[in-house]
Amino acid sequence: MISEFELIGIFKGIGAEYDKKNGIIVPSGDDCAVFNFQSEVVTSVDSSIENVHFPANAMPNDIAYRAIAIALSDLAAMCCSPRALSISITSEKTDKDWYEKFAQGIREVCNKYELSLIGGDITKGPLNINVTVFGVPLGNKIVQRNNAKIGDEIFISSQVGRARKGLKDWKNCKFNSDYISDYMHPKPKFSLAKKIYKNVNACIDTSDGLIGDLKKILTSSSVGADIYIDDIPITSNLSDLDAGDDYDLCFTMPPGIEDECFFKIGTITKDKKLNFISKKEYDLETNGFDHFKK
Amino acid sequence: MISEFELIGIFKGIGAEYDKKNGIIVPSGDDCAVFNFQSEVVTSVDSSIENVHFPANAMPNDIAYRAIAIALSDLAAMCCSPRALSISITSEKTDKDWYEKFAQGIREVCNKYELSLIGGDITKGPLNINVTVFGVPLGNKIVQRNNAKIGDEIFISSQVGRARKGLKDWKNCKFNSDYISDYMHPKPKFSLAKKIYKNVNACIDTSDGLIGDLKKILTSSSVGADIYIDDIPITSNLSDLDAGDDYDLCFTMPPGIEDECFFKIGTITKDKKLNFISKKEYDLETNGFDHFKK
Repeated sequence: MISEFELIGIFKGIGAEYDKKNGIIVPSGDDCAVFNFQSEVVTSVDSSIENVHFPANAMPNDIAYRAIAIALSDLAAMCCSPRALSISITSEKTDKDWYEKFAQGIREVCNKYELSLIGGDITKGPLNINVTVFGVPLGNKIVQRNNAKIGDEIFISSQVGRARKGLKDWKNCKFNSDYISDYMHPKPKFSLAKKIYKNVNACIDTSDGLIGDLKKILTSSSVGADIYIDDIPITSNLSDLDAGDDYDLCFTMPPGIEDECFFKIGTITKDKKLNFISKKEYDLETNGFDHFKK
Repeated sequence: MISEFELIGIFKGIGAEYDKKNGIIVPSGDDCAVFNFQSEVVTSVDSSIENVHFPANAMPNDIAYRAIAIALSDLAAMCCSPRALSISITSEKTDKDWYEKFAQGIREVCNKYELSLIGGDITKGPLNINVTVFGVPLGNKIVQRNNAKIGDEIFISSQVGRARKGLKDWKNCKFNSDYISDYMHPKPKFSLAKKIYKNVNACIDTSDGLIGDLKKILTSSSVGADIYIDDIPITSNLSDLDAGDDYDLCFTMPPGIEDECFFKIGTITKDKKLNFISKKEYDLETNGFDHFKK
């Protein structure tokens, strides 16, 4: 059974090579961490629970990677650059190997995004991973979901439903499926955020499904939208429009901005309704998408 | 069964009246919160687990209050002033009343310390409360545990073992015991921090027991200590020296500073040992305190 001393050793120093660059003044190891980003601080927290946010038998490095990546996605959604994270691990595991693999997952994300691990907590109990992320805005304005303007065009950057198919393939032991990494190692859209932050009016990450998350933009911006179903790249079938876990960005910009990195899927309207438009005669109600909900 | 919409409503706006004062730019409700403290940011995270950090049948308002207070105590230990918190709640409860009482506990702490609730997450699973706190240093220096100087005097501010007795009394249904609030509603020592921050060399909060936490100061400062057992105010018996959950501050300062708010209990020494000194002929080994450990 692993000792507390060994546990602390396993997680010590992860991301420390980025501390200076990231403005970390006191790293983990004291009662608190201290940092100075010389900027606004953007922060978000996400819990990942066994059998809700990841399968119970997922590999510990995948659990760690995914838990952090989905928290980072919230920073991307606000068009921010990530700096640091803290992670609380509640686990009943007692073998050193599990924690070493878990730490490997943390290290992998930290190295990929040059993040500092500035704190955390390890407690014994049913598996529960809690990640707090810290970042800084890329530009002068804070990008939120509540600023979509009438006439804005609506975009996403990737095929919807990839993660859901990935989880299905993983559960069916199709381990050579390209989609599995979409579920297990979501890619927070920081490069996309860098491309769009100067022009974007409203943005959200698609954690709960494209339509569900788009609705949050519409509600908080007090607008509606026309959605061009035929222009949305889908993975399996139309129910992908409600598939969660993609962690793409759905965002709105003034008309006329084009880039090969994103697809236009709709337009913001004054009328506070969500209209689905299709020339392919899909059997869609035009007043909402609740019929896709299970 | 409570809906997600109702849940969000219960927690909305807690501490919002302090947002402006606390430098909160974007409050909870978007993908991230945004703040600017115009200062270094001090942060810590603490998990509270059922039957580890609180009894399973504790009242939800007490669970919330305690989970936040023990996280805030880490800010006090670094001589900081608290500004904001986020809280992740994993719970299997489905009744609205439980969440309303839990929110009441959060509100109580926020009002007491003028804190903004800037984020959180609610997920379904075994009860697990994760609190991240944010604050600013009271002075120009960052107070840590690793700076105790040879010759420094060692202090605490209250009787050790109160919280342990409180938990015992609570479990024995002695609900009129004054000690119960020491366990259920720990008081982060912000007033004490304000008194000492200019002079303190090293500081820690006594979450794991006085001697255990003092040892962390000694180890990280590469010093030893003489401890005057007779001068330590105890609640029940000498094993209180190892009783956890008091959340007092144990701190060191240059000699000669006195105040009625704190007790001198020892002196920092060059010799990297922990010596227990008593004129009352207590049966104490002088090279450590492990014999108190269960």
